Amino acid sequence: MTKKRESTGFLIKQRAFLKLYILTSIEKERWYGMQILDELKAAFRPFGYEPQHSEIYRALHDLLEDGILTRKKIIEEGSRYKEVAVYSVKNKDEAKAYKKLVKADLDRGEQLLRKALKDNFS
Amino acid sequence: MTKKRESTGFLIKQRAFLKLYILTSIEKERWYGMQILDELKAAFRPFGYEPQHSEIYRALHDLLEDGILTRKKIIEEGSRYKEVAVYSVKNKDEAKAYKKLVKADLDRGEQLLRKALKDNFS
Repeated sequence: MTKKRESTGFLIKQRAFLKLYILTSIEKERWYGMQILDELKAAFRPFGYEPQHSEIYRALHDLLEDGILTRKKIIEEGSRYKEVAVYSVKNKDEAKAYKKLVKADLDRGEQLLRKALKDNFS
Repeated sequence: MTKKRESTGFLIKQRAFLKLYILTSIEKERWYGMQILDELKAAFRPFGYEPQHSEIYRALHDLLEDGILTRKKIIEEGSRYKEVAVYSVKNKDEAKAYKKLVKADLDRGEQLLRKALKDNFS
């Protein structure tokens, strides 16, 4: 697990944030490569945050390296030869444990931001 | 102003967060060097965040460079020769404008974290 690298003790890192979203998305259904990418971008745009493709790929790669996800190639529907990568959860316990860590970091971050708003603007 | 460098569009940067706290502290009273440092560390400790001295110094230096703060040397109380640095707000309008920017980033971050908690854990 890469928890240590992802937390400086300040706010959650973008990488962990994206890993969480990817995990949740893959838990819901088998996941075809980058279909989520545009969904994520659209979801965050109103918040002024637009994750880069490269950053999302790195998050995905981390999850494969951590052994939480697995990838296989299948023949694309409607095609005879074209292969696409499909991702699924390999280790449900590790996925659950990772999400629990990230949740704690999100909760902590929310508290820290709320404290800053209170301390400096009230 | 260094807004651009401080925001990747994801969450607020530690540097901006510390600049905000330093500014608020100096607005309240004249500020003797690093007296705030231990207060800040103690305040954030329950949140698992312990800013480093070097990071706080850099935040202070940024505020001087931005022309928001000014520094002068005075003779320490009770001493005949020992000089200490005292910081004060140089440009109230710029201080106000900077805090407004940071507030928007804090609000946005709080919304983003709340969204992540909702999207992934409910």
